[in-house]
Amino acid sequence: MNRSQEIRPIEHNEISVLNKTMAEKTVLLRARLHTSRGKGKQAFFVLRNRQHTVQCVLAVGDNVSKQMIKFVCNITKESIVDVQGKVVEVEQKVEACSVQDVELHVTDVFVVSAASPRLPLQIEDAMRPDTEDPEGLHIKVNQDTRLDNRILDLRTPTNQAIYRLQAGVCHQFREALKAKGFTEIMCPKLISAASEGGANVFGMKYFEKEAFLAQSPQLYKQMAIASDFEKVFTIGPVFRAENSNTHRHLTEFVGLDLEMAFTHHYHEALKVIGDLFTSIFRGLRDEHTGDIETVNKQYPAEPFKFLDPPLCLSYKEGVAMLKEAGIEMEETEDLSTPNEKFLGKLVKAKYDTDFYILDKYPLAVRPFYTMPDPENPKWSNSYDMFMRGEEILSGAQRIHDADFLVERAKAHGIPIDTIQSYIDSFKYGCPPHAGGGIGLERVTMLYLGLDNIRKTSMFPRDPKRLTP
Amino acid sequence: MNRSQEIRPIEHNEISVLNKTMAEKTVLLRARLHTSRGKGKQAFFVLRNRQHTVQCVLAVGDNVSKQMIKFVCNITKESIVDVQGKVVEVEQKVEACSVQDVELHVTDVFVVSAASPRLPLQIEDAMRPDTEDPEGLHIKVNQDTRLDNRILDLRTPTNQAIYRLQAGVCHQFREALKAKGFTEIMCPKLISAASEGGANVFGMKYFEKEAFLAQSPQLYKQMAIASDFEKVFTIGPVFRAENSNTHRHLTEFVGLDLEMAFTHHYHEALKVIGDLFTSIFRGLRDEHTGDIETVNKQYPAEPFKFLDPPLCLSYKEGVAMLKEAGIEMEETEDLSTPNEKFLGKLVKAKYDTDFYILDKYPLAVRPFYTMPDPENPKWSNSYDMFMRGEEILSGAQRIHDADFLVERAKAHGIPIDTIQSYIDSFKYGCPPHAGGGIGLERVTMLYLGLDNIRKTSMFPRDPKRLTP
Repeated sequence: MNRSQEIRPIEHNEISVLNKTMAEKTVLLRARLHTSRGKGKQAFFVLRNRQHTVQCVLAVGDNVSKQMIKFVCNITKESIVDVQGKVVEVEQKVEACSVQDVELHVTDVFVVSAASPRLPLQIEDAMRPDTEDPEGLHIKVNQDTRLDNRILDLRTPTNQAIYRLQAGVCHQFREALKAKGFTEIMCPKLISAASEGGANVFGMKYFEKEAFLAQSPQLYKQMAIASDFEKVFTIGPVFRAENSNTHRHLTEFVGLDLEMAFTHHYHEALKVIGDLFTSIFRGLRDEHTGDIETVNKQYPAEPFKFLDPPLCLSYKEGVAMLKEAGIEMEETEDLSTPNEKFLGKLVKAKYDTDFYILDKYPLAVRPFYTMPDPENPKWSNSYDMFMRGEEILSGAQRIHDADFLVERAKAHGIPIDTIQSYIDSFKYGCPPHAGGGIGLERVTMLYLGLDNIRKTSMFPRDPKRLTP
Repeated sequence: MNRSQEIRPIEHNEISVLNKTMAEKTVLLRARLHTSRGKGKQAFFVLRNRQHTVQCVLAVGDNVSKQMIKFVCNITKESIVDVQGKVVEVEQKVEACSVQDVELHVTDVFVVSAASPRLPLQIEDAMRPDTEDPEGLHIKVNQDTRLDNRILDLRTPTNQAIYRLQAGVCHQFREALKAKGFTEIMCPKLISAASEGGANVFGMKYFEKEAFLAQSPQLYKQMAIASDFEKVFTIGPVFRAENSNTHRHLTEFVGLDLEMAFTHHYHEALKVIGDLFTSIFRGLRDEHTGDIETVNKQYPAEPFKFLDPPLCLSYKEGVAMLKEAGIEMEETEDLSTPNEKFLGKLVKAKYDTDFYILDKYPLAVRPFYTMPDPENPKWSNSYDMFMRGEEILSGAQRIHDADFLVERAKAHGIPIDTIQSYIDSFKYGCPPHAGGGIGLERVTMLYLGLDNIRKTSMFPRDPKRLTP
């Protein structure tokens, strides 16, 4: 067992660098034993390091004894090993490995960390493409088995790629906003009052008081604006005690939130958010090309299409498209989830984009703090954004005037005393502002065209799952 | 009220750009009315935008009526106004403002958002330096008043600077680790079991089950390592239900956590973490020079000193320094908080650094999952790091072998069934690894030499405070 016995220079090589130019060189690798089989005086095995694999051969000879062959054949799959050997060019490509032009003729094998002989799932099964073997003769791993044994499941090339790309979403989000003068802030998750009537909120004992988990950082973003931070963003967990067991709901997810003061019109913010998505999509496409390919091999999907600048339709136009396609609905009626999906298809067919903005929602379907349209009380200064027909951002110009906020809350039948501290935030001068919140796991899921949000949350939480 | 009536180009100027070269030009500003006073046919007022202030003069004349003077004198402090005027060079520097060479001769004033006439605290009081008026003849604002009225308090130049610098800590942390091949991950905050015996943990009802708030992302970082992510970091809230009412404890704070697989020795990780701090300190010094100066004006402090590479002492050496200075203690006794502080002073005097690493802690004072020293069971492969004599990182090589983990848990008297899922994470092969966790608010506090962690948490949470 490594207990840091010795400080030594690191001479290990990465599997990914092995190729013909290294032929005849001796290399040292640390990797997992992916598969192995003995065959008389030889052992064949594959080493894996993240998405990279290489074939290895061990044969009885000058430096290799029969005992050693036996020892190696008994090493359990998924064990971590240090392997030394010579890089040898192969005549026929090794189709099953990522390193195809060379193999390793091994002289030494040392077990760094042994895996238990019985694995609850096999990595080869977990990485099998959805397209392969459609008749289902091969074993596939179902989602609960994957999630119950997440540390094994996460080792597949697809999962390695998904979470590298997800880190990329956060990176692109921050870089794009920092470049526009935004400041990152941290918002508390423990709050004293359940927002919006207390539905779907987790509550707990907090010393002598009661506390709740924040369902969104919105109040705090708005307070930062009222405190002159002008443009802010925050990334953090968001909690919803909603008993929804669907492909796109989690009880804990990561929110990418932003809020900004604007000068004249909330479309200044709308443009910033639209451009933000363009930056994210472009960044993912250009900096995660390999990750996208890796995921597509297991879960095929159409490439994500977007326009620059993004397409922006009014709600009215969206409803008109649906009506033209035969959907019966009122102009100010809320969009049902199936209608959202359908509108996404119509938009894709007409404009060839998987991302678009729907602006000027009916006032009646938005929260009380949404700024009504200045000319027509039917509409509001609010918007949703969609990826592949699913909502991934909801936002609006917020009411920044305390008196008007009271008026609108009363119109919604909300008792003023329950939101007094929210209202008070706007009593000492607040610039007009707008913003929105994005669900990280949804962006990753929809960008990659995956079918379930549990594929894009490393340790997902839903009403039935709180482990691992 | 701005309800986005009109899309217009933004022609507003920033206060910060005003100077002599703009003399005689007409400019348009949006800012807060910081102070104002009328004097016969004139009104004098100061506009403020974040840390920038400019003096304005309004005088009865061709374009300005007596009514307008009256109107402006009645605008409440902290209101947001649009002001148009001519930039005029002044003979004598305006000492009270950040713009000192010019003032604004105003022609138009428009109220964008009016503040309530009674402010619970005055910004001039909240921004008064600790050094000014030591006899206390002027009003100062106490901490609870500040925190109760945080949206006003956060408008002071000092607070604007503190939170810009704090965003810089996160930025430097991420950039330094990304450059070394780390991947950002997201760890769940809702967990199914209270870690380490359930002390100091917030619990809540979770549908039909019970859930707890994570006290650290450590298990999840380690699972990511066992899942081949190799080097990971995560930034997120950390919760401690500890009834500590001190200058440095919060019930919710932001953890900057990292974990990495190493090849031979945990000092590979120690070096990465040490260099990370050097990057953070250098980044803050070079990219937040103005912010540091601003904070120091209100809260004077010695500049933060650091060495490159950082100083690393063994625990044994640290204890020897304390003993030499007259402290009586055993070599393997834990460091009390006063002794930590005192050692920091001794280190500063001897090595002229405010940051140092203390390596190889006594095994007995560390958690069960800490890897013991390979040669002497008295010591362990663990370390703390200090800023100005206060601990800001605790870390170690973790035990990566399931059997040995069981052995060590038993030695600590921990019932194995309570930590079975933690142990199981290491059953399928796990590389040797080490890491640590940093408290964001503490880094900001100690870097700036501030006296209370509530100064570096935008909306602090402690046993007595859950609002705003």
